[in-house]
Parts: sequence; C-alpha cells; structure tokens
Amino acid sequence: MSERELLMIPGPTNVDPAVLRALSKPTQSHTSSEFVRIFKESLNDLKKLFMTQDEAFVIAGSGTLALEMAVANVVEPGDRILNLVAGFFGQHFVEIAKAHGAVTQVLEVPWGEPIKPEAVKDFLHKGNFKAVTVTHVETSTGIANPIREIGETVKEQSDAFYIVDAVCSLGGMEVRVDDWNIDICAAGSQKCIGAPPGLAMLSVGNDVLKLLDSRRSPVCFWYGDLNNWLPVVRDTSQYFATPPVNMIYALHQALKILLNEGLEQRFRRHHVIAEAFRAAMDALNLRLVAKRESAADTMTAAYYPDNIDDATFRSEMRRRGIVVASTLGPLKGKGFRVGHMGNVNQNDILATIGAIEATLKNMGYNLNEGAGLAAAEEKILSL
Amino acid sequence: MSERELLMIPGPTNVDPAVLRALSKPTQSHTSSEFVRIFKESLNDLKKLFMTQDEAFVIAGSGTLALEMAVANVVEPGDRILNLVAGFFGQHFVEIAKAHGAVTQVLEVPWGEPIKPEAVKDFLHKGNFKAVTVTHVETSTGIANPIREIGETVKEQSDAFYIVDAVCSLGGMEVRVDDWNIDICAAGSQKCIGAPPGLAMLSVGNDVLKLLDSRRSPVCFWYGDLNNWLPVVRDTSQYFATPPVNMIYALHQALKILLNEGLEQRFRRHHVIAEAFRAAMDALNLRLVAKRESAADTMTAAYYPDNIDDATFRSEMRRRGIVVASTLGPLKGKGFRVGHMGNVNQNDILATIGAIEATLKNMGYNLNEGAGLAAAEEKILSL
Repeated sequence: MSERELLMIPGPTNVDPAVLRALSKPTQSHTSSEFVRIFKESLNDLKKLFMTQDEAFVIAGSGTLALEMAVANVVEPGDRILNLVAGFFGQHFVEIAKAHGAVTQVLEVPWGEPIKPEAVKDFLHKGNFKAVTVTHVETSTGIANPIREIGETVKEQSDAFYIVDAVCSLGGMEVRVDDWNIDICAAGSQKCIGAPPGLAMLSVGNDVLKLLDSRRSPVCFWYGDLNNWLPVVRDTSQYFATPPVNMIYALHQALKILLNEGLEQRFRRHHVIAEAFRAAMDALNLRLVAKRESAADTMTAAYYPDNIDDATFRSEMRRRGIVVASTLGPLKGKGFRVGHMGNVNQNDILATIGAIEATLKNMGYNLNEGAGLAAAEEKILSL
Repeated sequence: MSERELLMIPGPTNVDPAVLRALSKPTQSHTSSEFVRIFKESLNDLKKLFMTQDEAFVIAGSGTLALEMAVANVVEPGDRILNLVAGFFGQHFVEIAKAHGAVTQVLEVPWGEPIKPEAVKDFLHKGNFKAVTVTHVETSTGIANPIREIGETVKEQSDAFYIVDAVCSLGGMEVRVDDWNIDICAAGSQKCIGAPPGLAMLSVGNDVLKLLDSRRSPVCFWYGDLNNWLPVVRDTSQYFATPPVNMIYALHQALKILLNEGLEQRFRRHHVIAEAFRAAMDALNLRLVAKRESAADTMTAAYYPDNIDDATFRSEMRRRGIVVASTLGPLKGKGFRVGHMGNVNQNDILATIGAIEATLKNMGYNLNEGAGLAAAEEKILSL
C-alpha cells in the first residue's frame, strides 16, 4: 500500500496530514486544562457545524452509536416510531428501534429514490408517533432526502420528535438543525468532517432534554444515556467515562480546518465536485443509482456497464492509487460507490475520473478517452 | 504543557511514541486487505493477552461500553445479578444492570478492602443469579480483587455467568480468562495496554455465545449486541459499523510491544515497580488506601499527610513534569492516585517518587530527603 493512495470511498475519507499530526500528540490526562479546553472548543465548533444552539455531544463510538443514542433516549418500549427508509442505512434505525422495544412503522422507498414529504404526511396520520427517523444522505445509494421539507411536515402534522442521521452529510452539505426542526441530529467523525472513524456525535434539542426527565422507564442504555453525558458536555472537566483524548485532538483540528474554510465555501466545493463527477459519469454513459434531482453532494453510486467485474474494477482502480467502494445489499456487484467529501478537492476528483476511464477502457468498455475528464472540467469551470 | 510530561494517572497512561506513530498512519479503508489483516492480528494478539481460546472483540467506545456489553448481552429484564462492589467502578456494574432491568443484589465492602470469596459464597446461596460481576483492579482504591478464587466459588456454587472488569489490570497483571472461569472479560485500551483511550475490548466465552441464541428477549443494545459483531471478529473483512481504523493501528502496535516484552516479564515489571512505589510511600509515612495484601500492581492510591491541599499538590507535581490524579467520591481531596502501568518503567517511578518528596517537603511536610527514593531503589535491587 502506498501512503499516497486516495481514499475515495464513502467513509472513512482521506484525513488531512494536520489532523493526523494532531491525532498523534502525546496522550494527556482527560482532566488537564489543555484537554478540557480542546474538548470544549470542539463541542462549540461542532455546534457551529450543526448550526444550532442545542447541546452537542461527542462520545467514543461509531456513527451507529450516535443513531442508537438518538433513538434510545427518545423512545420507550411500546412507543410508536416512524422510520423513513431509502436504503441500507435507513434500515439501521428500524433495527435499533426494535431493539429498544418500539413499535415500528416503516415508510420505504425503492433504492435510489428519496422520501417524499407528502408520503410522510399520509403516514403521520396513521398513528401517534413518538419519533420520526430519516437518513439525510443514504450512503448505499447516494440520494439526499429533503430534510428541511420532511421536518416541516413532521412538525406541522404531529408532535413527534424528528431524528436525523447526518452521518454522510454533516460538514459536506447544509444541515441546519435549528432552522429545520431537527430534535436530534446524529453524525460520525469519518466522512465529511475528515477525521478518522471512532467518534459518535449528536446535537440534542431542549425538548429532548426535557423528555429525559419525564420518561416512564430508564434509558435502556447506560453508556448512551444522555443524562450521563450532559454534565460532561456542559463542563468538559467533568467525568462520566474516559473520553477518547487523541481522537478529540483530531476532531478539534478537523473542525478548525473546516470552519477556516467556511461552511458556505465548503458546501459549494462539495457541490462543484459532485456536479463534476456526475457530469463525467454522464459523459461515460454510466448510470447513477440516485435519481438526479435527489443526488447527494457528498458521494455517488454508479452502475457498472455490462460485463465489468466488480472485484477486478476496484482492484485495478487501487493499482492506480484510487480506492473506491462496492455497492451494498441488492446492488452488490452491480456498481461502485465514490465518496467525494471531506478534504476531496478538484485534483482528487479529476484523478478519480481519469482512473475510472482508464480502468473501464482496459476492461473492454467502449469509451472516448478523456470524455469524462473533459465533462468534469467543463462543469467545474461553469460553476 | 511539555510533551515530555509523565502521565502517572491511572489511565490514560503514557503512550509509546511508536504507538502514536502507528495511530497517525493515513486512514485506510476498513475493507482494505492491510487493515483487515491488522484488525485480525490485533484480535489474535488480544486473545493471547486474555489467555483465552474465546472470541475477542474490539469496538469503538470506552471501557464503560465494554462493561455494558458484558452485562447487556447476558442479563434480561427480571434476571437476578450479583454485583461485587469494592469502590467507584464496581458500582458502575450496578447502574448498568439496573438500566437493563436486572434485579441487583450488591455485596459491598468498604473502600480499600477486597471482596472475599467466602462472602461471595454466602451471597450465592441467597438467590438464583444469572451473573456475577466483579472489578479486578478497583481504580478508585488500588485494590485487586481475587479473581481466580472468586471465579472458583462462582462456578462451584452456582450456574451464574462470571463477568470481570479487567480495565485496570489487563496487560499489567495476570488475567487468565480460561483458567479462571471468566465468561466475559471487559477491558479498555488506555491503561496497562498503553494505547490511547477509545477502544472497548472483551473476551466472550462459548457459553455466552450459546446463551445469545436462547434469550427470551432481544439485547436492548444494538450497537453492543455481540450477535452483530460476531461475524466481524470471526472475519474482519465483514462489516457491522465502521471500525475505528487508526485506533486499531495503535492497538495493534501496542499489543506487538506488549507481546514482544513477554507477558511474564511485563507482569514482573509491574510488580517490581509497584513494590518500589509502595516501599517509598512507607518510607515517607504515607498511608495507602488499599489493604497491603490486596494492593494492585498497576496503581496506588495514597492518603495525604495532614494539611496538604490536593489541588496545590497536584499542580506542584505537574510543574515538576509529573501528572498524578485525585482520589474519587468519599476520598476526594483526601489523597492522590498514581498509575504505574503500561509503559511505566523504573526511571519513571523514581522520577515520580522524587517529585512527591520534593513537593511534600516544599508544602511543609516533614520528611527525610531521599528516604522514599532509597527505599524504592532498595526494593528494586532486591526483587
């Protein structure tokens, strides 16, 4: 393996060398004034990223842990929950809700399609839901669900808590927790934020914190009980469980880089690169999994042309220094996924498109050399 | 802060520079052949450390997560559990058991004293327990509970699963999972193993895995459900949630260092250093919290002499480049805790003793300069 390999999978993403250096600073005491400050600054910066006045939480764990914390703190056994499912990761919320004894109602759309707010409206009338869950960017297909619009519907039509999985969008696309009526927003460190995997992150609104005091039963999840972490996120010198010191160094540095770039500029960069990549796929006649009008700016899933073997394609890509991912579940073997988020820049996306062209050509696919690159360049210059 | 500061708290501990370098390698795909191999080797090395043929698990989270996984997978609502509590961290098991609906029976001993196997025997007759929990080294007091003897009692007197918290012993003191009848052993990365905090680790025996198939109710903890992780630890190319790639690089390196030193040699080093530190405390007339015959080899809690202010002491120690910890709960302000585990060597322990002498002397405590150092040196040479 070359350490210059480009990690173009939908998470983990390439980590900036400055973030890796922060990661490897000598481990300090979690009660040292320096670490207490770094932890606090990270939480404050995270609130800026969530665009919220709510509390932010950072806990050792994967993004999946964040999803479970979101559900487990809100839902009690017997509560009804509406799970909006548009792919592999939306289904996670269903499994989690079941594990916590909720009665699940699933609104499922075919892979590649987004959830429609009107459909949510119809479902909301079917029951008294305690919570609604939705995935912002569905990493299995590359669609982005309309989080703002669904949030409006949920709040107009029900008293349900609105839980959003922003694991594959936060830091790459706009996520406005306060403006979009999001009660709990869950995220991870390893995608658009560009830190290594290993941190679960959440924003949690006041209504949820109030709910915690009026639950009929304790949260069946001690490590994930927000009540245990609340004193820590409000005063980072407090202790519940040992925080992942080095990972928080890395997050701190990644958030500084992110805010230094500026959120609007960062989202625009993601959009330009995504558009460039999609234009290249069009030029190469590769069909995308996601409906175009719902395509996410952070990643893309594309179908292979006929007679292209998945393992061979990805292994040839890697030989060219570019790591891409397979598709999941029912799409396994039928396509590939490219993450264009976090630190990915125009150089990286052109390199990726070039490698895709060369690999497909060598595997016998009929294409005009440079057509994808030219389309991408044209799109970049036009945006 | 100087990056040469000695971290002499009972976790996190000083991380070896080679481990920090491994930590900061470029993040790779969790499905790359290199990472799949590193993850697999780490699990295999961890089994050597647990001294077991059982399955080993490594998951993003703190040691607390490992404790919760141990309890949540075994216990169902209404099950009776016996919690052996000898301090602050033993109590964690009680809180966790309650969160999962277990009926808790607590055998508690005063802080500084160990759990006695005979007392466990008496309690086991009081009820049909599904599980017994115990803390090996209680980090709040520095006692080591007799894990082997308690395990024998549990297996002779009951059908209960034996759950051991080895967070503050694994890698520093002997922990024989197979020989000591331990069904689930929980640990973390940041203490005797000498990696940064952020990994939960467990060994899980066959009887527990069998139990998972016959539970009356699902595990109320999706992220911690062993059934979800079992395919991953058996084949590290499989996916459940994104593994903490860089933290596993660090663990991998730390375990190589550990096994290269050799377990027997490593435990002996911990014992010599612990004995040297205790001899120094005796020579300085500082009373230990833990009963001497039960004192752990990984850390020590000592009471302050009269009129020594906790915050001043620790801040003066830090000015001398040595970070020590406060005592917890009812002992807060009354003493300090020193971790002598992981990478800590004789040089470090002498430096720590020297700083304690100088600090106490400067704060007005009457001592013979060098008495602690001499006692430690004498002990080191005699062992």
